[in-house]
Amino acid sequence: MPAPPEFLQFIDDNANAFIQRLGEAVAIPSISGDATHRADVVKMAEWLNTHLQAVGVTTQLVDLGKHVMDGQELSLPPAILGKIGEDKSKKTVLVYGHFDVQPAEKSDGWDTDPFTLSIHPDGRLIGRGSSDDKGPVLGWLNVLQYHHAHGLPLPVNMRFCFEGMEESGSEGLDDLVRKEAKGWFKDVDCVCISDNYWLNTRTPALTYGLRGLTYIKATVSGPARDLHSGVFGRTVHEPMTDLVLLMSKLVDAQGKILIPGIDEMVDAASEDEKAIYEALDYSIADIEQSAGASIALSANKVDVLMGRMRYPSLSLHGIEGAFHGAGAKTVIPAKVAGKFSIRLVPPQTPALVDPLVIAYLEAEFAKLNSKNTLTVESLHGGKPWVEDVNHWNYEAAKVATKAVYGQDPDLTREGGSIPVTLTFAESLGVNVLLLPMGRGDDGAHSTNEKLDRSNFIQGTKLLGTYLYEIAAIEGKK
Amino acid sequence: MPAPPEFLQFIDDNANAFIQRLGEAVAIPSISGDATHRADVVKMAEWLNTHLQAVGVTTQLVDLGKHVMDGQELSLPPAILGKIGEDKSKKTVLVYGHFDVQPAEKSDGWDTDPFTLSIHPDGRLIGRGSSDDKGPVLGWLNVLQYHHAHGLPLPVNMRFCFEGMEESGSEGLDDLVRKEAKGWFKDVDCVCISDNYWLNTRTPALTYGLRGLTYIKATVSGPARDLHSGVFGRTVHEPMTDLVLLMSKLVDAQGKILIPGIDEMVDAASEDEKAIYEALDYSIADIEQSAGASIALSANKVDVLMGRMRYPSLSLHGIEGAFHGAGAKTVIPAKVAGKFSIRLVPPQTPALVDPLVIAYLEAEFAKLNSKNTLTVESLHGGKPWVEDVNHWNYEAAKVATKAVYGQDPDLTREGGSIPVTLTFAESLGVNVLLLPMGRGDDGAHSTNEKLDRSNFIQGTKLLGTYLYEIAAIEGKK
Repeated sequence: MPAPPEFLQFIDDNANAFIQRLGEAVAIPSISGDATHRADVVKMAEWLNTHLQAVGVTTQLVDLGKHVMDGQELSLPPAILGKIGEDKSKKTVLVYGHFDVQPAEKSDGWDTDPFTLSIHPDGRLIGRGSSDDKGPVLGWLNVLQYHHAHGLPLPVNMRFCFEGMEESGSEGLDDLVRKEAKGWFKDVDCVCISDNYWLNTRTPALTYGLRGLTYIKATVSGPARDLHSGVFGRTVHEPMTDLVLLMSKLVDAQGKILIPGIDEMVDAASEDEKAIYEALDYSIADIEQSAGASIALSANKVDVLMGRMRYPSLSLHGIEGAFHGAGAKTVIPAKVAGKFSIRLVPPQTPALVDPLVIAYLEAEFAKLNSKNTLTVESLHGGKPWVEDVNHWNYEAAKVATKAVYGQDPDLTREGGSIPVTLTFAESLGVNVLLLPMGRGDDGAHSTNEKLDRSNFIQGTKLLGTYLYEIAAIEGKK
Repeated sequence: MPAPPEFLQFIDDNANAFIQRLGEAVAIPSISGDATHRADVVKMAEWLNTHLQAVGVTTQLVDLGKHVMDGQELSLPPAILGKIGEDKSKKTVLVYGHFDVQPAEKSDGWDTDPFTLSIHPDGRLIGRGSSDDKGPVLGWLNVLQYHHAHGLPLPVNMRFCFEGMEESGSEGLDDLVRKEAKGWFKDVDCVCISDNYWLNTRTPALTYGLRGLTYIKATVSGPARDLHSGVFGRTVHEPMTDLVLLMSKLVDAQGKILIPGIDEMVDAASEDEKAIYEALDYSIADIEQSAGASIALSANKVDVLMGRMRYPSLSLHGIEGAFHGAGAKTVIPAKVAGKFSIRLVPPQTPALVDPLVIAYLEAEFAKLNSKNTLTVESLHGGKPWVEDVNHWNYEAAKVATKAVYGQDPDLTREGGSIPVTLTFAESLGVNVLLLPMGRGDDGAHSTNEKLDRSNFIQGTKLLGTYLYEIAAIEGKK
């Protein structure tokens, strides 16, 4: 049961109208992180709700309560729960997306107004939210519109969960998902999230893993106030000296984590697993182009890709409290805090890793024989996630990708985190698929964010085809 | 030939008038580092010039040209050269001081208006410049006033050099001193500078050494822009990792400099020299009270004082370009610059030390096998200075101190730098004495700067008595 040819034709025939509708959505500056735009996020929720209802989705706007941002109490924008189909003989697919966006101002360096969708002759649809995440959300609307317009049932039952706070920590969403696990979401068989990107600009991808994170702050304090290095140099224990010595014990210049037990927690990759990385359409040149310099840790593509996707990493971000300006200030800072984070992969979790980090830092600090004081704290953390790529949810997506794009998808893991993924996986206990619509160079949180026209239109076909393949494939239900 | 009792009595009798005059000087906010106060620095020069002429000094206001500050071209405030006495049978003493001050605003945390001299019942004369350096400069005026009022010749010929840019790098002064070495200053036999402080709050001091400095910036750059640590962690060489590893190789937690050849350049102290430090009226408790914490590198007072005064020190000041705010930003900074300085003691000079630092950092960086790029530069530097404490200039000051204060002075070296000291020593080739008027807790560049009444009045007596002892002592001329 592949997608009907009429569906694919409908998407092509209505491409311009879909792009125009994307323009309408982009024009609503639904910036969740800016209190002055909160009304726009609510407006965007109402816009999306209206469009969902127009294509036959039963919806519910969920009040998520209030929160404090920038010192003022604000109402959270509502989440939208949607439902279409109750056929017990069909699988039920839950789709997640978000309708809020990152901040953007023309003065940040945009070539055009970020909230006016600009259609470039080369096919780029440029505007804030075009790729993250309004394009994918509207992709689903496009699919639904075809079925609604033609009075055709969907091949699966669908549930929707759209939020307006993703760019600001998804406040309120975890509680909602947990609460509705046995309610609105009770018959869900699998989850599909389109909120990440292809590895490159050429090859569609399915993403089956995300790294977790623990963010550590190590503070060394000594004198009661900043001291003059002429007067106090070589008379007292200097907090910066201690802190830099500690930070130098965390990771070596080749990226190896030096905290005992961290790297060791992760099994080495089997030859089979290495073959997955070898197969990815990605090269050292791609990495270095993306970084803007020839600084890859290895000339071996598999090593570098595994470094990003399936091994932990430790990055030193900076020091709070030390001199950081231009020029030459001769201060001995009184209290300095080193910031670093460790990206985690299974079986690592913050709960397993943090005690090792803290014990190691305290032991290394003790070796310094310093009279200063060390405190170590985790500022925040999240667990990693890896999904079974042989599940029918992924198999359906592979077939659909091949059907629409004529090529097999890259099977990728992301080095970063999308916390809501883990929330769905843990709360619902079903397989979660990340099915990206956009390309690796979309610039999601950057200036001139774009979604390519072909990614929007072919991506819409992919979403629809995926539903048909889900329906067709052997599996639960 | 001790100071005449009439002189000492005159100073006591006129103490209140002297303090009132200090109030007049403090009331002129001669902040050299603030372009909006440049006219006040000029006004202060004119005020001082008038007062010098009123007590018989022949003066010359020297135009030092222009400079650029905060992007605008400004006229430098004039320096004042002064001359009194041409008696070939007398020694000639050159006095240096400065009439500009550090910035100060009540809102910085002052208890009273910083430019209104506040006379505290406990004797503190509180106001910006009271101790640094208007009090000492006016001390000389007080001495001159006695002799002028009584028609008495001074026991020595005097030359004066007062500047208005000391707090802003003494721009123009080096050239002036070099130019006048064989002109205005040609018969100078010794120099006296009152622009530093006692080691403690109890014991007068003579200062015979200053550390030099070299300020180093080591920059590691890699990617073309800041990178996301989720996407790039463990795929590329991170500049922060490299820089922290380099910075950790510079100094250990006990203050020992790890760059080969730096500490080794300095001879160990002889037992005789250690006895000087042992004799200083200073304790570990004084150091720790001053630092506000029990963090002295050693429980041995001599070791700690030598660490400040006669050994080099290396302090890590901070990192430019890394994350330095509050919170938890997961950035891989593209370009980071570590800042550190080394305080130098003879025979160290920036010219001798910088090549060792650069070669060592480059060698250590090579060991990292990083594909990032390192550049090392010295931002500025200055040579150390140590004077012969057995010279008649110091002997006269010792006798004078004993006469006025009833105790022997501490013989101190400062851990910091007063660059003009070296300028006079090198340009004139004569002995330079640092003869502090204020106490160690005067807070020269801080809030509530003060000079104690007794330090101002007894300090004035000391300056006069010093001139009489200079005249009396055996020595050149």
